[in-house]
Order: sequence, then C-alpha cells, then structure tokens
Amino acid sequence: MQTELSRKLGVEHAVFGFTPFPAVAAAISRAGGFGVLGAVRYTAPGDLKRDLDWLDAHVGGRPYGLDVVMPAKKVEGVTEAEVEAMIPEAHRQFVRETLARYAVPELAEGEASGWRITGWMEQVARTQLDVAFDYPIRLLANALGSPPADVVARAHERDIRVAALAGSARHARKHQEAGIDIVVAQGYEAGGHTGEIATMVLTPEVVEAVDPLPVLAAGGIGSGQQVAAALALGAQGVWLGSIWLTTTEADLHAPALTRKLLAAGSGDTVRSRALTGKPARQLRTEWTDAWDDPAGPGTLPMPLQGLLVAEAVSRIQKYEVDPLLGTPVGQIVGRMNSERSVQAVLDDLTRGFERAVDRINRIAGRSGQS
Amino acid sequence: MQTELSRKLGVEHAVFGFTPFPAVAAAISRAGGFGVLGAVRYTAPGDLKRDLDWLDAHVGGRPYGLDVVMPAKKVEGVTEAEVEAMIPEAHRQFVRETLARYAVPELAEGEASGWRITGWMEQVARTQLDVAFDYPIRLLANALGSPPADVVARAHERDIRVAALAGSARHARKHQEAGIDIVVAQGYEAGGHTGEIATMVLTPEVVEAVDPLPVLAAGGIGSGQQVAAALALGAQGVWLGSIWLTTTEADLHAPALTRKLLAAGSGDTVRSRALTGKPARQLRTEWTDAWDDPAGPGTLPMPLQGLLVAEAVSRIQKYEVDPLLGTPVGQIVGRMNSERSVQAVLDDLTRGFERAVDRINRIAGRSGQS
Repeated sequence: MQTELSRKLGVEHAVFGFTPFPAVAAAISRAGGFGVLGAVRYTAPGDLKRDLDWLDAHVGGRPYGLDVVMPAKKVEGVTEAEVEAMIPEAHRQFVRETLARYAVPELAEGEASGWRITGWMEQVARTQLDVAFDYPIRLLANALGSPPADVVARAHERDIRVAALAGSARHARKHQEAGIDIVVAQGYEAGGHTGEIATMVLTPEVVEAVDPLPVLAAGGIGSGQQVAAALALGAQGVWLGSIWLTTTEADLHAPALTRKLLAAGSGDTVRSRALTGKPARQLRTEWTDAWDDPAGPGTLPMPLQGLLVAEAVSRIQKYEVDPLLGTPVGQIVGRMNSERSVQAVLDDLTRGFERAVDRINRIAGRSGQS
Repeated sequence: MQTELSRKLGVEHAVFGFTPFPAVAAAISRAGGFGVLGAVRYTAPGDLKRDLDWLDAHVGGRPYGLDVVMPAKKVEGVTEAEVEAMIPEAHRQFVRETLARYAVPELAEGEASGWRITGWMEQVARTQLDVAFDYPIRLLANALGSPPADVVARAHERDIRVAALAGSARHARKHQEAGIDIVVAQGYEAGGHTGEIATMVLTPEVVEAVDPLPVLAAGGIGSGQQVAAALALGAQGVWLGSIWLTTTEADLHAPALTRKLLAAGSGDTVRSRALTGKPARQLRTEWTDAWDDPAGPGTLPMPLQGLLVAEAVSRIQKYEVDPLLGTPVGQIVGRMNSERSVQAVLDDLTRGFERAVDRINRIAGRSGQS
C-alpha cells in the first residue's frame, strides 16, 4: 500500500491514524502506518509535553504527527471567562434541566472538568505548537480551516508537512492557497466535524481541485475494501480516526462507552452541533436528541457550545450515564464489533486491501496477473 | 468490467442505468450497459405500452428492464380522490401562496398536469406491470420496499430478475427474505429516495448482509474511478441514475433545468421530503427551502405530499420558473458539466475504470502486471 506520499514520509502503508491516545498513535506508527496525536484535549502544556515524551520514546523511531484545532474564525484577544460570559442563561438552564432529568451526579467540590475543549481556541493551539515544535514531528494537521501563515512557515522551517481537513473542493483550494502540503478530504460519513458531501463524491473532487497536492481520504474507511475504494478515487492515502477507538490500546475511561461503540450500527450516528456548535458526527444519544429537538433552545455557535457543555460532558462520561453517553465517531462504527490491537487492525486493512485488488483485477479481466 | 451478474444478464459492462427516458434506456443497453426504464411517471397504460414498444424496437436486441414504485406501506382500496381529500387546507394554501409569490402562471383551463406521481400508488404500479409483462424485460426493479410476493412470483415465472433498492442492511435482508434476486444499495449521496448511510459504508454492509445475493452500488457514482471504488467495495455492478439527465438523449422538457444541472456543484443538492413526503435528494431550490423551513407547514407523508405538489411542480417545470425549478439528482451533479451522448458517458466510465485499476495496481506494487 505504497503511494508517492507514503514513500516520501517513509512509512510502509499509506494509512494515517488520528487518535487522542498516545499509545494508539505509537502503535499505528510501529505497525507501519502514520500515527497522528490529536492535541485538542490538552489544555495544560505540561500534559502535552509529558505525552509527546512518551510517544517519542515508544514510536520505535518511526514518523508521527500532531493534530491541532485552529478555527478559521478566531475569537481574538478574549479570555475564556469573557467567552463564558457570552453564554445565555436559558442555555445554562437547559443543561442543568437535562442533567437533572437523567440524575447525572455533580463533580466533587473543586474537581476540575476533565473534558475541556478550550483547545479549540487559537491561543491554546499556539501554546500546543510551542511545545510540539521541540519534537521531531513530521506532520502537523489542522482540523478546522487553514493554519495561520506564520504557523505554516514555522512548520516548513522544521521540514514538517502541514495538512488540513476539507469538506469541499472550495475549502481545499483555500488550503492550497494558504501553502499547506496535504489535504484531508473528510466526507459526510466521517466522525467529528464534517460537511454534507460524501467521501465517494468528495475525494475525486478534491483531488482534481488541488492537483498536484496529495489528498488523504477520510470518512467511511474502516476496512481494506474501503481503503482500496479511497485509493481508486485518487487519494494518496487514507486518514482513519474512528476505527482506533475500540482498539485495545485506546483508553476511553468509560467501559460503557466502549460497549456502546461495539454495539452501534452504521445508522446509530448523527451529525449534530451538540458537541462544539459546528456539525460533528457522533453517536446519537438522548443528549444529542435534546440539543437537536426543535422544541429545545438549540445549540450555540463555536466556541460557546463547547464551553457550555464541557462540564456536563465530563459528568456524563465520569458517571457513564448510558442514555447520554456518546463520542465523535463515523458511520463505520457499524463494523467496530470487537476490541482488537492496533496491529490487528492494520493487518486486517492491508489483507483486505490485497483481496480487494484481486477482486478488481478479476472484474477488469486481469485475473491472470494478480 | 465483467462480474458474475453482468455475465448472467448478458451485458458487456456491469453498469445499470436507471432513467425515465426510453431513448436513454435504449442507448445505455446498446452501449453495452443495462438500461432500466423508470415507469413511475406513466399513469396511462397506453403511454407505457407506446414507450415500451419504442424501447423494444430500439434496444438492438440487448437486455433491458423496468423500474416501478410499490411503496411498502400501501394506501389500500382508496381512490385518488379519497387520498386527495386527506390533504389539509393549510397545505393547499401554502402551495398557492408560494406559487403566487413567484408569479407562477396557471395551467391552461382543462390542461392536465403533465407531472403526476400517482404511479407511487400500488394499483397504478400493478397496471404498469400488466403492460410490462408482455415485453421481454429481464429485470424488474422496485424503488420502495420489497415487491409483493405475487409480483415476485409472476416475474420469476417469466425468468425476470427482481431487484429492490435498500438504504440499510436491515432493508436489504428484508428484500432477501421476500425472494428478490438483486439488491441495489443506495447511499445517502444518491438522487431520489435515499437514507442516511453513505455508499462507502453501505455497500460492503449490504454485500455482507445478503451474501450470496448480488448487490449493485448506487449513489455518488458518475466516473470510472467511482465505478472502481464501488466494485472494490464488493458490488457486482453499479446503478446510475443522475448521470444520464444531462445526456443528449435525455429530454427534460425544460432547457433551464438542464442549465441548472450543468451549473450545479456537489453541494447544491438537498435531501428533502418536498417532492414525495419521503426524504429524496434533489436540487436545492427556493421550493425545497420553503418546504424545509421550520416556519412553514412542513411536508405531508407519502403519498399525500406528491399529490399535493403535483400540479405545482408541473407549472414550475412548464414555465421554467428558475428559483423553484428542480429535479431529483445526486451529489455527482457536480461532475455533470457538459451535455454528452450516452455512449460518451459509457466510454468515459470504462476508460476511467481501467485507469483506476492501473493506479490501484501501482499502489499495490503490481504495476508490472497491469
């Protein structure tokens, strides 16, 4: 599974794995893929430094990357407290009522919310970068919009390739104009922030739009057949996030959530603004239903919604309140039916890819050649 | 592009083309694909007979099929007038007001609405079948749910294969239990009635769910790369509808609509209940926006919505009222940028498929063998 891009980056398989867990990122790179650590949950620079130290020591000398979130629309020069103050009381009341309806316990007095999303804010992302640039990362990905020009320049000085996610050909062309090196075309079926255009349509559109930049396909990819399909569509690799959530190396801190993921079908996700204020695919729960209900107050724009629900999401996760418990995940959750090691997932992807190539060669009448 | 299914059906390419136009269906079959005529717009049996006579005479002896619509939920033993009487006056008023706002002219006194969708009703579909079974059709497809058991039996007596569209693995298994022969897995990105699960995820799920039944992939397929992707996902062929709308053989009776299709991007469609009462992907217009607006009365269930809007849609199409003018079409509308012959489309698909196979072989390290 070798493309021009995977050869340039020195990895065995053109499989890029995005994950919030250092153990998963390390295992992906060790297994011949390209592990990318999601930094959004790190709000304290010391925590990111600790985990990058660990990752760097456990990656076996293989290349790895970092994913940050710098929204295209900035909330400039304001503190978290000032942003918090923009949240209407009616929305805070709705959070309290919804939590009360499900008898969600409070955090202990003084206990910090473990799940913050202030990482969406640019100043937090910049602090993360100051830490990350001390490590030999080979790829810097940005999940929302193009990174600022000075960030791209700093990365390029260090021979770090810059990637950015795009949900349309127009977004992808903006990234190209901003000097980024790799576009991740993220389809509708993907977990997390995603647009309306499905991977089957989006991938070739983005490939054509930014040619000759390499494109990674994201969304709907969790098997070797799907890898083959994405590469047939012109991608130079695949970008997988959801599939790692149920690997043995992942640590969701909530066994009930792992059970829900293993049980969910492809129809059990929803594209909702409940988590961050922008549409993000996630498990459909009574929590997302409450926010998506036309009878409710509706969601707030990013970054307000994320700040509004941060403590609530922490409480739901800590106490594993089943009807409300969710996570960003794509439609391939339907094939995440057993806990496997990262190595087993990679083996399955590469073997499935080879079988799909055999099949396509038979259909093309080239069966004697495979 | 030969699969077990295409060989059994005696066609050169595993490309199934659904179209409401006999000239397009004939051209698809003559070009080596499998043309399927959509019967839903035929309410008078004489019209269907006339067009099947023409199709049979122009198909060059190649196999072809018919697509009918028999909803799983029937409106039994009621007349069209009785169904019409179920439509609330507020909805009729909303239609009148919306048409007035755009100054849509009335049809001439006594002029019949050219665009009826009473073909959704089972008795109409049964009349269509009585006509169609006199012709050597090789495939009978049903667009909504499994066809009734007696219809499947009548088809099988005549050696006609029965296909049914499915938007989930569960629907597909129901079709299998109902004795159908081929499942068309129709993804979210498809034109017309479609579910939430994208083709990339849906296709392999349905293939596994109904194994060993053959599956056709539908939704998001308009290029040879996309054909290769669908076949890599395990499909035994592809089912294309949208791509033919801008062929030279198609006759939309509205040049303004052809212009809109040629200009539209992949983001210019919407999955809306405006047309039939069930979610169907179509061009997004001010007409769909009006129905999807939470401030409006909303849509009625099938078949009421279709009856409610039939005359309005006729008027919008006849007078080509641009802001309201739409049609069912999938996200691949973004690559429908020029009017081409059906033969040119087929040539493009097969050449693109071969290039995609070359590419995938290079990535798999089998480049010397392609």
